[in-house]
Amino acid sequence: MFVIGERINGMFNDVAKAIKQGDKATIQDLARKQMESGADALDVNVGPTAEDPLRAMEWLVNTIGEVTDAPLSIDTTKFEVMETGLKLCKGKAIINSTSGDKEKLDRLLPLAKKYNASIIALTMNKSGIPQDAQSRAEIAAQIVTSAQEQGIDMNELYIDGVILPVNVAQDHSREVLETIKQCKLLCDPPPRTILGLSNVSQKTLDRPLVNRTYLAMAIACGLDAAILDPLDKDLMNSMITAELLMGKQIYCDNYLGAYRKK
Amino acid sequence: MFVIGERINGMFNDVAKAIKQGDKATIQDLARKQMESGADALDVNVGPTAEDPLRAMEWLVNTIGEVTDAPLSIDTTKFEVMETGLKLCKGKAIINSTSGDKEKLDRLLPLAKKYNASIIALTMNKSGIPQDAQSRAEIAAQIVTSAQEQGIDMNELYIDGVILPVNVAQDHSREVLETIKQCKLLCDPPPRTILGLSNVSQKTLDRPLVNRTYLAMAIACGLDAAILDPLDKDLMNSMITAELLMGKQIYCDNYLGAYRKK
Repeated sequence: MFVIGERINGMFNDVAKAIKQGDKATIQDLARKQMESGADALDVNVGPTAEDPLRAMEWLVNTIGEVTDAPLSIDTTKFEVMETGLKLCKGKAIINSTSGDKEKLDRLLPLAKKYNASIIALTMNKSGIPQDAQSRAEIAAQIVTSAQEQGIDMNELYIDGVILPVNVAQDHSREVLETIKQCKLLCDPPPRTILGLSNVSQKTLDRPLVNRTYLAMAIACGLDAAILDPLDKDLMNSMITAELLMGKQIYCDNYLGAYRKK
Repeated sequence: MFVIGERINGMFNDVAKAIKQGDKATIQDLARKQMESGADALDVNVGPTAEDPLRAMEWLVNTIGEVTDAPLSIDTTKFEVMETGLKLCKGKAIINSTSGDKEKLDRLLPLAKKYNASIIALTMNKSGIPQDAQSRAEIAAQIVTSAQEQGIDMNELYIDGVILPVNVAQDHSREVLETIKQCKLLCDPPPRTILGLSNVSQKTLDRPLVNRTYLAMAIACGLDAAILDPLDKDLMNSMITAELLMGKQIYCDNYLGAYRKK
């Protein structure tokens, strides 16, 4: 399981404030803590309120780069902000994200190639987020075809089934699980699959319960990666246990500790 | 999700002692508490140490029948003990269990028909418990054919993929998930699927974590029923949440409470 830590996102008040005040310590602390808790990469999103998104991305990537060369997932819808982030990454970069729209793919897939970056592709397009798994899988198939044409390795492509909050779009949670299964049948080797996990639990009363339950379910369906909060220890324990039950880690009594020491 | 409470089993010391001493209160308390916690049925197993298994089963079924007419899962390998239990059930009975062996099926399927009972069938036979999902599904297919020949409704047939402890047979946990998926493709309507959940976590250090994680995973694969401990509140919360995420219960903020009031 490839874990991308979600916490360096201007959507969170502490991060928005740190960006505004140029407070490196808060960002670097979040970077370190997420890596120590089992993150394999860090998402970087300047958030909706950054006054100058390009400068904010520059500052965030450089600030994180001072303490870790972990892969960074550059999370923005703005092309210039994306390329700025990719350029500054010390380690591997991940483009987060493209949609299935042709013009997006035509701009972002070559960018992935240019910077040797992985790329997250959402199964949505100008028509919106499909209702069902079949339509999501059709968009995924188009994305896979485009990626193959651009010479992108399937191990570098992460298909995101776009989970919506269960409280407003309940049917989608089942359909996204089905999408994960179907993505594994698109080609051989198949693309990787990813979820922006926390979205599923928006505004539910016990968000950690919903998050950790859905993550175990998605892993059973073949999920390879997730953007999540690695500081949630119960969530990480569920994830590690689900991986164990899928045979991805060899059993030992202290399998939780063994995973964390890896 | 059809929940069969596992606690009235002579394998547990309190139950073995209650059987020996004729202590009705302990058994009736366990029956009531399991039902209040969300069990739809109660497993009844005299355990390995009962001196007279037939008398013990009689006593257990009658004792439980004084406080509830919930369905009872008569859990024994002895034919006479099984028929005794079935005869005495006030409510619906469930035969727990037959294997895929022809002579077992030939005796137990007609018994299910005679007592209008559901029947749990294990995907194992004289050769043992198969290593992989494919072999389990082949046994399941033979069971389905036999059940259809005997006129058993597929809604009354529960296929049990036979989960082994993850600490001794780690590969099986993934194979059983795959078995659950494959059982759903055997016929239309398909048989139901069930797990004896707690077995997966035998001798692991955090049994509740392993149980609740595996249950969520199995529900994602289409599990319909489980024999489990309904007194484990975290387990029930995971189960209810997984059912919600599969769209089996309509979302409301207090979906946990709503499920329990059903």
